[in-house]
Amino acid sequence: MIRVGIIGASGYTGAELVRLLANHPGVELTLVTSRQYAGKPLAAVFPHLTGSTELVCEDPTGLKTAGRADVFFTAVPHQTAMAVVPELLASGAKVVDLSADFRLHQQQVYEQWYQTHSAPELLAEAVYGLPELHRAAIAQARLVANPGCYPTSVLLALAPLLKAGCLDPGSLIIDAKSGTSGAGRAAQTGTLYCEVTDGFKAYKVAEHRHTPEIEQELGKLCGQELTVSFTPHLVPMSRGMLSTIYATLAGDYGQGELETILRDYYREEPFVRVLPAGQLPATQYVRGSNFCDLALRVDRRNGRVIVLSAIDNLVKGAAGQAVQNLNLLCGLPEAQGLGIVPLFP
Amino acid sequence: MIRVGIIGASGYTGAELVRLLANHPGVELTLVTSRQYAGKPLAAVFPHLTGSTELVCEDPTGLKTAGRADVFFTAVPHQTAMAVVPELLASGAKVVDLSADFRLHQQQVYEQWYQTHSAPELLAEAVYGLPELHRAAIAQARLVANPGCYPTSVLLALAPLLKAGCLDPGSLIIDAKSGTSGAGRAAQTGTLYCEVTDGFKAYKVAEHRHTPEIEQELGKLCGQELTVSFTPHLVPMSRGMLSTIYATLAGDYGQGELETILRDYYREEPFVRVLPAGQLPATQYVRGSNFCDLALRVDRRNGRVIVLSAIDNLVKGAAGQAVQNLNLLCGLPEAQGLGIVPLFP
Amino acid sequence: MIRVGIIGASGYTGAELVRLLANHPGVELTLVTSRQYAGKPLAAVFPHLTGSTELVCEDPTGLKTAGRADVFFTAVPHQTAMAVVPELLASGAKVVDLSADFRLHQQQVYEQWYQTHSAPELLAEAVYGLPELHRAAIAQARLVANPGCYPTSVLLALAPLLKAGCLDPGSLIIDAKSGTSGAGRAAQTGTLYCEVTDGFKAYKVAEHRHTPEIEQELGKLCGQELTVSFTPHLVPMSRGMLSTIYATLAGDYGQGELETILRDYYREEPFVRVLPAGQLPATQYVRGSNFCDLALRVDRRNGRVIVLSAIDNLVKGAAGQAVQNLNLLCGLPEAQGLGIVPLFP
Amino acid sequence: MIRVGIIGASGYTGAELVRLLANHPGVELTLVTSRQYAGKPLAAVFPHLTGSTELVCEDPTGLKTAGRADVFFTAVPHQTAMAVVPELLASGAKVVDLSADFRLHQQQVYEQWYQTHSAPELLAEAVYGLPELHRAAIAQARLVANPGCYPTSVLLALAPLLKAGCLDPGSLIIDAKSGTSGAGRAAQTGTLYCEVTDGFKAYKVAEHRHTPEIEQELGKLCGQELTVSFTPHLVPMSRGMLSTIYATLAGDYGQGELETILRDYYREEPFVRVLPAGQLPATQYVRGSNFCDLALRVDRRNGRVIVLSAIDNLVKGAAGQAVQNLNLLCGLPEAQGLGIVPLFP
Repeated sequence: MIRVGIIGASGYTGAELVRLLANHPGVELTLVTSRQYAGKPLAAVFPHLTGSTELVCEDPTGLKTAGRADVFFTAVPHQTAMAVVPELLASGAKVVDLSADFRLHQQQVYEQWYQTHSAPELLAEAVYGLPELHRAAIAQARLVANPGCYPTSVLLALAPLLKAGCLDPGSLIIDAKSGTSGAGRAAQTGTLYCEVTDGFKAYKVAEHRHTPEIEQELGKLCGQELTVSFTPHLVPMSRGMLSTIYATLAGDYGQGELETILRDYYREEPFVRVLPAGQLPATQYVRGSNFCDLALRVDRRNGRVIVLSAIDNLVKGAAGQAVQNLNLLCGLPEAQGLGIVPLFP
Repeated sequence: MIRVGIIGASGYTGAELVRLLANHPGVELTLVTSRQYAGKPLAAVFPHLTGSTELVCEDPTGLKTAGRADVFFTAVPHQTAMAVVPELLASGAKVVDLSADFRLHQQQVYEQWYQTHSAPELLAEAVYGLPELHRAAIAQARLVANPGCYPTSVLLALAPLLKAGCLDPGSLIIDAKSGTSGAGRAAQTGTLYCEVTDGFKAYKVAEHRHTPEIEQELGKLCGQELTVSFTPHLVPMSRGMLSTIYATLAGDYGQGELETILRDYYREEPFVRVLPAGQLPATQYVRGSNFCDLALRVDRRNGRVIVLSAIDNLVKGAAGQAVQNLNLLCGLPEAQGLGIVPLFP
Repeated sequence: MIRVGIIGASGYTGAELVRLLANHPGVELTLVTSRQYAGKPLAAVFPHLTGSTELVCEDPTGLKTAGRADVFFTAVPHQTAMAVVPELLASGAKVVDLSADFRLHQQQVYEQWYQTHSAPELLAEAVYGLPELHRAAIAQARLVANPGCYPTSVLLALAPLLKAGCLDPGSLIIDAKSGTSGAGRAAQTGTLYCEVTDGFKAYKVAEHRHTPEIEQELGKLCGQELTVSFTPHLVPMSRGMLSTIYATLAGDYGQGELETILRDYYREEPFVRVLPAGQLPATQYVRGSNFCDLALRVDRRNGRVIVLSAIDNLVKGAAGQAVQNLNLLCGLPEAQGLGIVPLFP
Repeated sequence: MIRVGIIGASGYTGAELVRLLANHPGVELTLVTSRQYAGKPLAAVFPHLTGSTELVCEDPTGLKTAGRADVFFTAVPHQTAMAVVPELLASGAKVVDLSADFRLHQQQVYEQWYQTHSAPELLAEAVYGLPELHRAAIAQARLVANPGCYPTSVLLALAPLLKAGCLDPGSLIIDAKSGTSGAGRAAQTGTLYCEVTDGFKAYKVAEHRHTPEIEQELGKLCGQELTVSFTPHLVPMSRGMLSTIYATLAGDYGQGELETILRDYYREEPFVRVLPAGQLPATQYVRGSNFCDLALRVDRRNGRVIVLSAIDNLVKGAAGQAVQNLNLLCGLPEAQGLGIVPLFP
């Protein structure tokens, strides 16, 4: 039985980790922390968890975590994560960090988009935790940087075609749409029900911090540096993320040909569903599950391909992928505890 | 391995049965039927099920079902169910019927609220499938009438207090609210997105067909005939049902006293959560799960109690309860396959 | 041209007042205040108002309001209102107060449900601003207490039947449902999009502060003191309020008879629509308008009547009714500026 | 008083025309037709219109429309429109057609994307009714082809920059998102509440019929033929449309420079709001109004500009623009009846 602790359990990602671990046969949840709700049962913070956990939120300040768990999930904001992770590692535990702090390999890129990094020595060691791309390295890691939700949806969509050389790397335009849970559970006017419902908007156009993360990983895939256009949008829904990605084809590729590349690439993957010809991804069909649904359309009129990718931002885009990484880290079956059928409607 | 068939798999309840059975370790799904989608893979009708089932919808007309399954779920409209169920039973299978056709014990009451009954001989045999009230009888049954969603939410709320004699049986007023999935998947103007969203209304005021079902079962609990006021409403959400029930107290009962009655009654039940003092049920906290959440408030100013009850109408109000009944029918652990943590947010 | 000021313009009610006044031909908006957004154009706080107003939010602290407007709307929280209103009146202006501070006639009732009242001398003078019940008094008033949204929906539904003696005053049960805008624009976890959407719940069961207001006004209508059961619920929608009200009939009244009483009572009212026989109110059909839609159903099985009432909580339940009161106060046509057709879908 | 008839009043666009005309001081609505609801009061089909119109739906089959109105709105599906419009014109009336039948100038392009055209002789005469681009021609027209919702949002966004030569015409990528009312009021499984809510998807990728309409009008603006990538998406909201448009800059333009071009172009337009620097359009801020909100962001990292455009698809994208065209056709003030402040929240 792997003992697991969650540092920062009172956000939506923390709650989602608890939901997934509650039905994981190889794991025991031993510790949850929350600064805001210290001393309160987690099931009082999240009433849907009533009966699923008896744990009480512990105050992370000065908490002795050594020996309390074999693996920690850190589900705290960036900057907080880099302050916490070194100590957890030092105590001998493994860490899956769900923040952005260890995703960028280059300190200077991190500091350009975020702030000063206080634990740069770990950047080289941290493994970018997208199992479909870095499975072997994850299995050997001590620190896994769990990918951002947007990058996950983009990288799974583009990896096969970029690796196969079908796309012009300089042409990539990513128009992405996210459910509101991506904005977290902090009380803010902008994410109030009345501000979000029955509305749609873009935000952080051409300046979202997931941009360098996307570019870093795409660059590895095609073997050259690149810049992308990336525009995130806010959808009036709780969960779900759809990325619509435009690329100029590097040759005269047909619909069937590209579909085959996609299908072959993911044939053995438990969590990537390349949809049957004619179907398109929709976030409601992956809700609550660890699936990433993919499809593409070649537009012969202008030599472009449009690749579409749907995930649940809290699962494959966060907690589900983190559990997948946990399984790899601990030598458990990769899909264990993640066999959730999507909830529709 | 119990072999299970679903007659009428292309509605929301049918899809929900498939979702639940996909993760049920003791069951194999062997047959799904759909008149409308005959010949089509069920996963093409419901793309969220891609990867969860390879079954193709079979045309129910003239279908030989004998030997195809040990237990059948009939998830077809009332009137269709009574035409199908006798044959299924005759072939030696057990049946959990999710329609209204076998819930009312008296033919004349059924025919007053619905239409002529073509299989009245089965009414006496059918067991009303609310496990918390009729567990032993269900375990012995051949035909289980799975309760309606509204009755489920009402009966679980009132059973303990009515049985204990705390309520005036003539005073019951039930104000119930349901998500839109309760209206089914048929294409109708009234349930289009634009008609339902950002709106709220009552429907079938003082004439909904779940009224006699509620009255029959409440009558058994308090040992006398009664009539209730029952008003259903449509909520702009997919899933979830909340019943707010008003009753005049039959004596000078206090808040703590009634809470204790409720808590004691359900102490051993796996799917009823009597909430901690001070909390109130909310449908978002039971979403996707088989839980029924309960709370009550005594209003000393006018001698009434208000009991609140939340379920997911597609799970505890339909498919989940049907699987619970299946487990009882087949001697499996009652909660098997139903350990789903609610999906929030 | 009546000059109007809004004290507290940065909440949803404040914004709604601006929307309505922008198209009011007899009114000029001269002043808006907001502590939080002092110095900011109101159209930057509420981008939908871009082009509708050039006003900049002024800091209310120490603000000289004398002479700035003929009538003030105070759209601030209770307790703040009672601190502000006396001064506004003293400067010679009239006031429509949208808070709860001047709705209850008896100081002791107010203090029992709210807190100490700092301007009790105004309680006797303030007129309860429900035009359909108190039109003449409003026209003569200096201070109008604009009714709460729940009381508005309840009083319009019950006034005709209570006055006509058709109902047992001790039997009233009010099950009310409100859109989320009723909770205001303050940043709170409980009204975040993800907490509210796809969910439904009751709140403040048997303890909501609109209870004494409802009881006071119902008591006047039937000429005796009474207590009601009142349960508010939160609906996943922005705007709209539906009240479902249960009463025991005081005699053998039929459906048509009661409908006629309702219809006759409101025959000349511009904002009350008694629906054609067979139709039921729905909040989506009054969205954005000052209408109150009404219908009723007699349930002969148990001698009760169910009265249903729909309003837009921000319009007839707040800002629209306030403008209606403004028109009465200033001798303008009562419906001026309020001829808005509901926005559907 | 201009007499107006609506052919096809029982869809969402028809209802929206009635809403707008009800408050239009220069217009009298004299006729509404509906095949499905013939003989039924329009206010029974759309209860929100109760009190706003007494008209009864007339059966269009064999209806004599001559002399019944000065201007007709045809709000029927394409193919039906081309069968109806010639006759209306022949009777001496003017027509604003809201279908796609007269938007494309070239018969062969129309027939390639739609079907055989039965009134091709009118294609040359019909004026494309985007007032901001073709105001003078509309004022002289007999037949106005009211633009599609997607083209409206795209053309207003791109016209200033394309005309000024700032964009590479071959680089245009349009990622557009629409509320569900765009799919109409027909009963279809795909637009049921439960299918749409809490979900997001693309549809008709690289094959939507608004593509040639967009290309025709953009081609005029830049003086050369072009093809675009156009991907529509379905948003879980009733109303609203946001287009996110990517273009490669044709030179070294800066943020301020392009903003100035946009602002100057629309300085006198009553319905286009170029947002203050730093703000981004959101559909909730134009809801129910005839506004188009615009903003742009230059991305120096890759030499592209992203232009964002928000409209209410039923107003500026359909009925509001049609009324604007009516005003132009009839010599009324262009903004008459359209001074609606957006409804937020």
